[in-house]
Amino acid sequence: MSLIAKTPEPPYYAVIFTSLRTDGDNGYQQMADRMLKLAANQPGFLGVEAAREAVGITVSYWSDLDSIKNWKENSEHMEAQRGGYGKWYSSFKTRISKVEREYGNE
Amino acid sequence: MSLIAKTPEPPYYAVIFTSLRTDGDNGYQQMADRMLKLAANQPGFLGVEAAREAVGITVSYWSDLDSIKNWKENSEHMEAQRGGYGKWYSSFKTRISKVEREYGNE
Repeated sequence: MSLIAKTPEPPYYAVIFTSLRTDGDNGYQQMADRMLKLAANQPGFLGVEAAREAVGITVSYWSDLDSIKNWKENSEHMEAQRGGYGKWYSSFKTRISKVEREYGNE
Repeated sequence: MSLIAKTPEPPYYAVIFTSLRTDGDNGYQQMADRMLKLAANQPGFLGVEAAREAVGITVSYWSDLDSIKNWKENSEHMEAQRGGYGKWYSSFKTRISKVEREYGNE
């Protein structure tokens, strides 16, 4: 998977997930790896970019809103979401956005 | 400035800038700090979130497309953009997206 996602011509969707971690791993890395693998196999998944310093940012790209909804309602993902706040994240925000335009050097 | 941006009710806009750095600083940190300060003083600026590991992700939030256009065309910012590719970034992508929905724990 490339670090900068190879996305198609807009329009498509971006889910911007920003979070602050709790202390300790508490199974976080295993969950995160599993969710990444699961997401990548969902219909409509286009790619993902992620980095964490003081704040963590994960941007996943999707072909349409239905694909995002399906992923949100995936049973294993829902279980992770229920565990997420308090156990892994002290604070988070999820933003659903429609990519209208993109440019870059490739 | 809080790590997770305090944004208003959608709709608003997100500029997702993803990049890979070249080796060495080459004045990067000074430029990045200056651009952040400049951006925060632009009309329509709502907030910013940033993290870098293998890939760098900076998401800035704006009230509307005109504000984004004004910022893109800010003269000092344009100078940084001209210097950006090759000097600071080996690869980058900028995506302009409209935030339609958000949720979180605050």
